Order: sequence, then C-alpha cells, then structure tokens
Amino acid sequence: MAVQTVASTTDSAVDLGPAAALSCRECGHRVPLGPVFACEECFGPLEIAYDFSAYDTEELRKRIEAGPANIWRYAPLLPVPADVATKPNMNPGWTKLVKADNLARELGVTGGLYVKDDSGNPTHSFKDRVVAQAVEAARAFGYTTLSCSSTGNLAGAVGAAAARAGLRSCVFIPHDLEQGKVVMAAIYGGELVGIEGNYDDVNRFCSELIGDSAGESWGFVNVNLRPYYAEGSKTLAYEICEQLGWRIPDQLVIPIASGSQLTKIDKGLQELIKLGLVEDRPYKIFGAQAEGCSPVSVAYKAGHDVVRPQKPNTIAKSLAIGNPADGPYVLDIARRTGGAVEDVTDEQVVDAIKLLARTEGIFAETAGGVTVGVTKKLIENGLIDPAKSVVVLNTGDGLKTLDAVAGTGLTATIRPNLESFREAGLA
Amino acid sequence: MAVQTVASTTDSAVDLGPAAALSCRECGHRVPLGPVFACEECFGPLEIAYDFSAYDTEELRKRIEAGPANIWRYAPLLPVPADVATKPNMNPGWTKLVKADNLARELGVTGGLYVKDDSGNPTHSFKDRVVAQAVEAARAFGYTTLSCSSTGNLAGAVGAAAARAGLRSCVFIPHDLEQGKVVMAAIYGGELVGIEGNYDDVNRFCSELIGDSAGESWGFVNVNLRPYYAEGSKTLAYEICEQLGWRIPDQLVIPIASGSQLTKIDKGLQELIKLGLVEDRPYKIFGAQAEGCSPVSVAYKAGHDVVRPQKPNTIAKSLAIGNPADGPYVLDIARRTGGAVEDVTDEQVVDAIKLLARTEGIFAETAGGVTVGVTKKLIENGLIDPAKSVVVLNTGDGLKTLDAVAGTGLTATIRPNLESFREAGLA
Repeated sequence: MAVQTVASTTDSAVDLGPAAALSCRECGHRVPLGPVFACEECFGPLEIAYDFSAYDTEELRKRIEAGPANIWRYAPLLPVPADVATKPNMNPGWTKLVKADNLARELGVTGGLYVKDDSGNPTHSFKDRVVAQAVEAARAFGYTTLSCSSTGNLAGAVGAAAARAGLRSCVFIPHDLEQGKVVMAAIYGGELVGIEGNYDDVNRFCSELIGDSAGESWGFVNVNLRPYYAEGSKTLAYEICEQLGWRIPDQLVIPIASGSQLTKIDKGLQELIKLGLVEDRPYKIFGAQAEGCSPVSVAYKAGHDVVRPQKPNTIAKSLAIGNPADGPYVLDIARRTGGAVEDVTDEQVVDAIKLLARTEGIFAETAGGVTVGVTKKLIENGLIDPAKSVVVLNTGDGLKTLDAVAGTGLTATIRPNLESFREAGLA
Repeated sequence: MAVQTVASTTDSAVDLGPAAALSCRECGHRVPLGPVFACEECFGPLEIAYDFSAYDTEELRKRIEAGPANIWRYAPLLPVPADVATKPNMNPGWTKLVKADNLARELGVTGGLYVKDDSGNPTHSFKDRVVAQAVEAARAFGYTTLSCSSTGNLAGAVGAAAARAGLRSCVFIPHDLEQGKVVMAAIYGGELVGIEGNYDDVNRFCSELIGDSAGESWGFVNVNLRPYYAEGSKTLAYEICEQLGWRIPDQLVIPIASGSQLTKIDKGLQELIKLGLVEDRPYKIFGAQAEGCSPVSVAYKAGHDVVRPQKPNTIAKSLAIGNPADGPYVLDIARRTGGAVEDVTDEQVVDAIKLLARTEGIFAETAGGVTVGVTKKLIENGLIDPAKSVVVLNTGDGLKTLDAVAGTGLTATIRPNLESFREAGLA
C-alpha cells in the first residue's frame, strides 16, 4: 500500500481528548494530530502520543470504575473527546473475561486460565473496538464517509458503526467473496463494492482512492485513520487488568494478523503501569499464528529481527496477513517480555475450537482456535508456565467461520421411540 | 406434549433462593418446589411463587446495582441460590438497551425509542437467560443431563450452558435440519441426536423419554424444568427498567412464540412495582407475530379468549409455534394493559431487519424483524403512541438466519481503478 506522507488537513486544535500529537515509532518525529499514518522524515508508522500528566491515579481509577460498561470507561486513555459516550456509536467492549476452569483442567493449568471473549462485541469481533476509535477520528477530521478494504470482520464492523453514527459507509471487497460474508457486510445498508480482482487489488485501489480528490472526504479506518483506529486494541489490556482486579496476568496469548493488536496490548499494559493503576510486575506476551500464515512465528524461531512475507494458506482467514506491518515489533515484545511466537496447523485450530466449545461453551472463530491451540502447544513445550495465570484472547465468533468446523455433526440418528434410543446407547 | 402431573422427586428443602413453592396459574394450588410443570388438580401450568417479604426496597436496589453485569444481579428475584454468581455458568444478560435515535426518526417516534438487543448474549439469543435458570434447577434436583428438543437457538444455549456447568447434554433435533444449524448445536460437544421425523415427532419422543426410567436423571429445560426456565425472561423486564433509570417504559413490543416471554416480562414488571423499585404507572404491552404463524394475533383481532392452532409457514422459525401454550395469557395482558397483538408478512420482516441494520447497526434475527416490523405497523395504525417511549425487543442474532436476507448483496461491482469507480457514481 502506498505511503501517504502529506499532513493534508491537519488541525492541531482538534479535540481528541488526551491525544496530544502523532509520534513516529521509529524516529520519534512529532506532528500535529491529523489524518496521516506515516512519518514524513523516515516513513515509519505514526502512533498517538498522549498527555496523561494531569491524572491522579486514584481519581482516574474511580472515574474508570464509575464509567459505562463499554470501552468508553477508558475514554481518558483514548484518542476520543471526553463526551464520546454521549454520541451515537456501537459502545463495544467490556466483554466477558471467562474463568475457564474446565479448560484449565484439560490443559493442566493451575495458576488460573481466562478467556477474554471478544465475540461478545456488537458485531461479534474485536474489530468493533478499533472501528469505534476510527469513527471519532473521522468525526474530528470532518470525514463523512467511513471506508475500508476487507474480506470479513472489518466490513461488518465498519458498516454497523457508520450506520449508528450516521456516516456514509463504502466498503471494498473482492467481487467473488462467499455469499454469506457478502450478506454480513451488506446488511447494514452502506455501499458494498465488489472489486474485480483479489484482496491485493482491492488494497491497491484503496490507496489510489486515498490519493485522489474523490477520496478526500473519506476516512479509511485502517489507512489514513490507522493511528487512531489501532489504539482501540489497548482497551483489551485495560479490561483484562481491571477485570482481574487491577492486576496484570502473568502470561497473555494474543493472535497475530498485522501484529497491531499485540503491540497495542503491550502499549496498554505499559500505560497502566506508568499511571500506577497496576503493579509493575513481569508479564510474558505470546503471539499466535496459523502455520499456513506464520511469518512472525518463523522469524521468531529463526532468531530473525525482520519478517519474511508469506503467501497465506490457512482456514484462519482473519489472521491471514502474509506481510504483517507490525511483525518486527511483535518479535521485540515477545523477546523483551520472555514470551514467544508459535503456530499451529489448521487441524489443530479445528481441534482447539472444539476443545474450547466443549469445555467452556464458547464457540470461537478460527482466530480463537489459533490462540487456544497455541496455548496448548506452549504448555506442552514448556514455554507457558501452567502454575501461573494465563489469559487467552478469542477475538471473534464461530458463527462467522462455520465452514471451518462443517464436519461437526449428529452423534446419533434414531427413530422416535425408546427402543431406538436404547439401541443407540444413549440411556 | 403429554402432561406430567406426578410430583416425583420433590424436595421442599431445596435451596432456590426466594422461590418458595410452585403455584398453579389457573387454580392457585401450591406444591413444593420440584421438577413438575402441571397442576395435579386442574392440569394448569405451574409457576414459581416467591417470598420477597424480607426485602427492603432501597437495600434491594443497592444490592442489585452493586451486582455483576449479568442476570445474577437479580438473583434475589430469581429461583436460584444466593451464591449462583460464583458457580460456572454462562452469565448471560445485561445486554445493551440501545437508544435508537436513527430508527426513531424514520418511524416518527419522539418519546424515545429503544432496542433491547439480546443478540449480545453468550450464544446470541435470549435463550441463554432461561437456560441459565434451568441449569440451577437441574443442579438443585440432582439432574446430571440437560436436555431439550429444538430446531435452533435453544439447542446452542443448552449445549453451551451444559458444557460450562459440567453437565452432560443431550439435544434432540429433526434429523434433516440444515447443516449450519447442526454445526451450531453440535460444536459444544454434547450429544446431538437426530430423530427420524418432524419437530412434533421429536417432542412426542421427549415426552415419552421423560416418563421412562431412561430419562429419570434428565432435566428437560422446557418441560420438567419449565417453571424455573421460564422465569429467566423476567430479567428482560428488570434490565429494561434499571437501564431506563428504574422506570417502566410506556410501551413494549415483544415477540410471541409460546407467549411465555411476554407473560414473564409482565410478571417481572408487576414484581418491580410491588417491590417499590419502580413507580406504578400504566404501560402497554404489544405482542408481535409473523403472519405465517399468527394464532395469537388472529385471536386478538377476532376478540377471542382462546387461541386456535395454526400450521406455521414463515421465515421467522424461532417464533413458529402454531399452538402457543401461553397464548390466552398473552391475550389477557395485551387487553389489560391497553396494548395489542399484531403480525407482519415475511416481506415486512425482511424489510424490518434491513431497516434496523441500516439505521442502528444491529443485525437482528428474523424474530427481531418481526418486532421492528410490528412496531412500524402499530405506529402507522395509531395503536402505538409515537410521543411516548417504546422499547422493542430483539431476541436473536442475524448471523443465525442469514438465509432470510440472502438477497442482500453488492451495491456495485467495479474494476480496480478510479475510472471505473467514477463511472459507477460512487465518488
């Protein structure tokens, strides 16, 4: 995707709460808040720099705890205006942190095993968290159309959020996407445009559109609004810690697509420590990929600092990014915290989806199968300590990836009488 | 379904919190708490009688408000032990009450329009509320297998809840159910048994099983555990009122399948009034059906007190009960409160699903299309007052009934370039 470096309609007076500026992750160069995502000095990724200096720890904790049961309880830590909770939006987040005692028994975890179940979000994936930030950025910059390229969860999240917020939406997808996924994206009534080409063609076209006058009132959630959008993943860190009684878990297992979610969760944990909301204690972050798209896992195991792109071939389509932008940062974080990056086969993904459903009644998307499967593998190979606490992320809903477990079926077929019931051994 | 009148393993010492006895809705005959559902005197339906006499209004309100963000905040008003929230269960409820301002504008509602969105429950339908009560009753009565007959939402809710609670589950479905629905029910790893026959055959078989020794350790959530199970719907009333700031809305639109949900919501509102938790003010309850299965609507319009069974033929399959057990009670409530019962065509159901998605970003199951469609119709025919508040229930998730809106698709297909984009009129 082409890199946009012109700080076009930047307005430093824009009100996005504690967000003070954009700062380059590579060289630290700062620019005013605006719809830009790459550093004009070094082309590194821009991210939000905050001013949290005015916060008193205990006052902040009380303010958060008195807040709404959604991500906006953390508005003081996000790039959103203070009155965000009063505006029409999807109010995602504050999803369940399930104490998974049955799964813990099966995996031999004695230190406490938890599943952060983001299938409870409004469109049933974690994407609602990030899109909600992009909506506020779009409002702040005066954009009237919310857009993205997508092959799945993001399309629905953008369509729904735009509908609620009263923005136009225009989502671009490959024209030959499966009918079920088209319906899930089209139902919200925004424009859904099929592009004659593959997902790479869709992305190239979106880059072209951003640089053109036709796209000047358009906010692409994960392109020109990406610095804002990405911050939404921090809320997973905040919620997990608050739900554990303001405590960082010992170990976290996080899926890797672009790697952004994992890096922002680490950022969120670091912020909580600096703000004094949690004790500064060691934690390990583990990244999870599917073997069929495992560029970060391969780089981790080879001891590399760079990530070599792969051509994805896995049922875990929501994680199938072959050239993950934040891959090097993921490697840094896994190594710095003493974690690791691991991958599992598609067969292991399916087994893990069934394991989680059978033990905890949670029907996860393939991405959840990846994290549960990787957790099992990391326990088996000794990298996760089962005597310490583990939080595993499930970022999506099994209803969206039914095909992956299509083989699951009836345990018996009987005639409608007791004899047939007994013959089947069901009594 | 055969009526079971023998109070078999009744144990009056069972701890189900404030539940004091079972009481016949028709003749008032009381029996101790047990796994029975029909009055031994008159065959009327048994329901829970509570002892709320010890509660102080303001203490109770504080206790509820300090409770967990799920139905167990209302444990003092439900047939569950006081420590229910500490046991492994799905913790459903406390779903969003969405202030639907965009939909209100389209429908001309000025008094406040809200959607109670139960797609946010763990298995994405209101069934999680009722099954959670049945799990506690099963535990109290020593049942080790949780069972039901189902063609949809209930199967998933039972499978998930049993998995979490560590109970065996055995769900009976027609053997020729669509593969997607089989997967949604089978994924939780319980026994899923196909019955060679239609849904009526499945129900007849379940009745036979309940009367047999083979079924003696089995809790059928909506048969021998029905009095407990049904109480879960009261939590919808509690949540709506608390989320409105302890206020009863002027008008509620509720779907009708068996009619149980509507009658229990009315029961919940009456309890809140008696307990002093809300002001005693008039409210109107409206029942919603699909035209293709509208026995209660037909009876309402004809001025009848009894409901003549219909053979269902509608896309709203989760509401397709042709002989609704609580139909007469629904008629009573609609008439007593000054409400009504109305129905809409399948085409109107689809239009309403799209309307809700387009305006509020909520993708409802067909049952939600029925309530939104009926709301629109009742406003148009003057029975709902648009100057007063309205709460509309969405009881399920659109991802489960994708077929109903399968026609929804791309708004345009273009080549991956700006010329094609402009030609399509998208700029």
